[in-house]
Amino acid sequence: MCRWLAYSGTPLTLEELLYTGDHSLIDQSLHSRFGAEPTNGDGFGVGWYDEDGMPGVFRSIEPAWNDANLREISPHIRSGRVLAHIRAAIGSPVQQTNCHPFRYEKWLFMHNGFLGGFHDVKRDLMLEIDPTLFAKIQGSADTEVLFHLALTYGLEDDPVQAMERAVGFVEAVGHKHGIEFPIQMSVAVSDGDRLWGFRYASDGAARTLFFSSPVPDLRRRYPDNPLFQRVGDESRLVVSEPLGDVAGVWNMVPESSYGIVQDGPDVLRPFTPTPPKGRATKRKPAAAGATT
Amino acid sequence: MCRWLAYSGTPLTLEELLYTGDHSLIDQSLHSRFGAEPTNGDGFGVGWYDEDGMPGVFRSIEPAWNDANLREISPHIRSGRVLAHIRAAIGSPVQQTNCHPFRYEKWLFMHNGFLGGFHDVKRDLMLEIDPTLFAKIQGSADTEVLFHLALTYGLEDDPVQAMERAVGFVEAVGHKHGIEFPIQMSVAVSDGDRLWGFRYASDGAARTLFFSSPVPDLRRRYPDNPLFQRVGDESRLVVSEPLGDVAGVWNMVPESSYGIVQDGPDVLRPFTPTPPKGRATKRKPAAAGATT
Amino acid sequence: MCRWLAYSGTPLTLEELLYTGDHSLIDQSLHSRFGAEPTNGDGFGVGWYDEDGMPGVFRSIEPAWNDANLREISPHIRSGRVLAHIRAAIGSPVQQTNCHPFRYEKWLFMHNGFLGGFHDVKRDLMLEIDPTLFAKIQGSADTEVLFHLALTYGLEDDPVQAMERAVGFVEAVGHKHGIEFPIQMSVAVSDGDRLWGFRYASDGAARTLFFSSPVPDLRRRYPDNPLFQRVGDESRLVVSEPLGDVAGVWNMVPESSYGIVQDGPDVLRPFTPTPPKGRATKRKPAAAGATT
Amino acid sequence: MCRWLAYSGTPLTLEELLYTGDHSLIDQSLHSRFGAEPTNGDGFGVGWYDEDGMPGVFRSIEPAWNDANLREISPHIRSGRVLAHIRAAIGSPVQQTNCHPFRYEKWLFMHNGFLGGFHDVKRDLMLEIDPTLFAKIQGSADTEVLFHLALTYGLEDDPVQAMERAVGFVEAVGHKHGIEFPIQMSVAVSDGDRLWGFRYASDGAARTLFFSSPVPDLRRRYPDNPLFQRVGDESRLVVSEPLGDVAGVWNMVPESSYGIVQDGPDVLRPFTPTPPKGRATKRKPAAAGATT
Repeated sequence: MCRWLAYSGTPLTLEELLYTGDHSLIDQSLHSRFGAEPTNGDGFGVGWYDEDGMPGVFRSIEPAWNDANLREISPHIRSGRVLAHIRAAIGSPVQQTNCHPFRYEKWLFMHNGFLGGFHDVKRDLMLEIDPTLFAKIQGSADTEVLFHLALTYGLEDDPVQAMERAVGFVEAVGHKHGIEFPIQMSVAVSDGDRLWGFRYASDGAARTLFFSSPVPDLRRRYPDNPLFQRVGDESRLVVSEPLGDVAGVWNMVPESSYGIVQDGPDVLRPFTPTPPKGRATKRKPAAAGATT
Repeated sequence: MCRWLAYSGTPLTLEELLYTGDHSLIDQSLHSRFGAEPTNGDGFGVGWYDEDGMPGVFRSIEPAWNDANLREISPHIRSGRVLAHIRAAIGSPVQQTNCHPFRYEKWLFMHNGFLGGFHDVKRDLMLEIDPTLFAKIQGSADTEVLFHLALTYGLEDDPVQAMERAVGFVEAVGHKHGIEFPIQMSVAVSDGDRLWGFRYASDGAARTLFFSSPVPDLRRRYPDNPLFQRVGDESRLVVSEPLGDVAGVWNMVPESSYGIVQDGPDVLRPFTPTPPKGRATKRKPAAAGATT
Repeated sequence: MCRWLAYSGTPLTLEELLYTGDHSLIDQSLHSRFGAEPTNGDGFGVGWYDEDGMPGVFRSIEPAWNDANLREISPHIRSGRVLAHIRAAIGSPVQQTNCHPFRYEKWLFMHNGFLGGFHDVKRDLMLEIDPTLFAKIQGSADTEVLFHLALTYGLEDDPVQAMERAVGFVEAVGHKHGIEFPIQMSVAVSDGDRLWGFRYASDGAARTLFFSSPVPDLRRRYPDNPLFQRVGDESRLVVSEPLGDVAGVWNMVPESSYGIVQDGPDVLRPFTPTPPKGRATKRKPAAAGATT
Repeated sequence: MCRWLAYSGTPLTLEELLYTGDHSLIDQSLHSRFGAEPTNGDGFGVGWYDEDGMPGVFRSIEPAWNDANLREISPHIRSGRVLAHIRAAIGSPVQQTNCHPFRYEKWLFMHNGFLGGFHDVKRDLMLEIDPTLFAKIQGSADTEVLFHLALTYGLEDDPVQAMERAVGFVEAVGHKHGIEFPIQMSVAVSDGDRLWGFRYASDGAARTLFFSSPVPDLRRRYPDNPLFQRVGDESRLVVSEPLGDVAGVWNMVPESSYGIVQDGPDVLRPFTPTPPKGRATKRKPAAAGATT
């Protein structure tokens, strides 16, 4: 099982985000080596947005806890939008091009979960991808296909609608191939400005997804925590699993829901896959909608 | 530019085939580091057939000259059918799944050259691939697509006819996309029994391809060469570039030709791409022809 | 914690030894990813002896369960003497030159455990190493130093005596530096003919070490097990931890003991570190003793 | 042959320093793949100083031109003191711990050249290293030993004097072992404030070393060059080989010389190895001098 963390808020170094604390993301993968939890030792990746709004991505096939370069660069990169992912490979090869987050222009995308029966449905899913995006797929992981489906359905214009159509399409194709539960996911998406988190599974038992409580509440509750004092009111973590077990910090996103972390009030709403009703083309979701 | 070597004959160790001599394949890539020739430092692979006729494949993204494991295992693996490839990446990522030789069941396939405008034609080429083969593609290299096209067209039944159709299809798709010269190749294919070498380019100036002279001739010419004394009469090397400049050893395959190394007399014949005449399905090339 | 397996007996493929069965070495490291056991994801190595008695070594910094090349070559390498090791790094970098087994000429050496306070004692230990061996050390792991100490003390002539002196020296140096428990080990050593297993720790609670029961007994007990029928009477596994929990297969080596697997009766005897009595030189342990 | 670049001046991104221009360091290693020059494909490293004066180091065993992560992070790291090195391995294994620059606290060190007969002299050189530094050596490269010798002789207090003693010691030990020319080097050293470049070889024909002309001169000569307009007057590059062949940019450091790039006037002076006159200890160069 993969794990991921997405951060939006006061700029912090990658070191502060990934290594600090008893329950950091790296720390968890370290502990999982020696403890009772599953291990995530099949590569990792971290994406971050610079001041100019463009994302960098560092991906490696080493276990995260072994990567000397990740540790080296982490104090030197500071960002207010970070997506980090530790991978447990399911089926596809351990190679950099299969590591999350995936990137398309200013968009980053990462995923915990899988597409059911991917080997059987891969061709049908790939054919749906916008021809201009097709050759941009460099790896063989199901998540990269899901990302490009969402791009095909207009992720850049309306991420929620695009994800609902992508998931709806994956379910339709899966069912056509006799796959009972075609998708299982907690997904993070960002364009550098906003951060979307999606939780959904065809069987109604989705991978977990949590968001941190408002910083002002955390400050009141933990007046001695230096990090809570330091980051701004709008700072927020979204994680596939809680980091640490500090009371009052983590709130579970309900099944079949999505959230948006953004300037101003964040939102949490239901997520409903849209069954395909016709052939859509990228960046013209309105036209596609008109076919209904 | 990639380099490759294919051997068929008396079983030799990988060490004898890859490292021995002043002009071995590894030695050439080593020399090319310090000399005037192009370097091939973007990974390598070697495939070999066991006594049971099944191929093993060892692939690495390190430069061949650096790989301690290749050097270690090479004296311990002995085979009468070996395909070895050193890669200079053009466009696609340096990852194991892009290293040659590619394998499908008992078939191995490797290539020096490229598909022109691959980014533009990739989708059309992938759609032609037999749906049952589609999800077996793990990397992003043009050669893997060419291999799966040939499999789609019946490589397992009739390699020459399948390659002629695959190349004909690549040229037709390329021309449709305005690519003047869609393919450039010297290719080696084997099923463990026989070895096929193909030389062809759309522009009529294909990558070179050479085969070694008959061993009895070499023995007469070089009575002191221990290797020539030791290997059987039928042993033969097929290479993308001559190993060493020993007179009388290397014979160039003409443009637009293919050769077969096999029990009994080897053959050398013209290679003529077959333009597509309709939708073909794997292993039923006759039916496809009937649609015209 | 590292794990290792040493095999002596009827030649088997690496695949049979490492991958076959519900409790193979690779399988254990795979299960440990998803179960409650510690993970060993910091590289691995396997050494084997050919018919000519020389060892090959394949080492990798990938987790063993991810290495495509190990899986590929394993059905193609057959040997009657195999040492395999899966590493959990303690302190020293994850790099090929720190992976076990280590090799010197025809000798292989691997270790589960550690030298206490290695950072503090390393220099003193290195100075004791025979000057002609000094520059052969390529990595930074404690085990490589222990191996070269044993070579210095005559491992090639008398492995038990050499190991007793090496461990005695490590303990003396450690105590000089205030380290209470200078060594913790289960070690396997082979020259291709015989296989030595050592179990010892300064604190009297050494890493475990097991050997398999005589094959004739196993055949009687498990008449349906095809492997037990197939391997010869003298075949034996020595392991750091039992593979599987089949009753009657595994016998624990007592604390402070060593065993020898060899043609004819195997032996199991006490292991007693020899405190240093003076400066010894390689291959002349008698002279060193004479200085007392 | 290795290549390196050291920069001191107005903060630039690693991308500007390593990738920009027709003759960047990466570009040169790329071109050397396809041209007539030697290739440097055995790993690379880059070290840089942050605003807080501490160095980060990114090292990789991939050829520099292949490393996707180096390319990714390079636009995101900005520094006014950068050391970058591309390696051609001579003898020692290709592993991260053998890649330059080496680091000790705030010091970075990189080297083009070699220690003659390193295998023979390694032990004597290692014994001279300060015992508290001994265990910090993690790789097996000659340069790491040279660096730790210089640290032993007081690099942190007086880099020039320490390098003169280190080189003098290497020459004395080499001569004792019958090595005619014990050292060949162009070396860059920095503490984040200043940058030292050393050029010396025992045979009087040292690896080349160049420094860039004063920026005001370059601006006058190339008024249209945007980089020269943008960087401050004190900015300077020191390189093992000229980047590009722009007239008036590069000035060769004479044989047996060193230079210092610093605030205020830079200096260029003769470099004279100091033969060893007695046992020195780290950080007490004065005491050692007193023994003369």
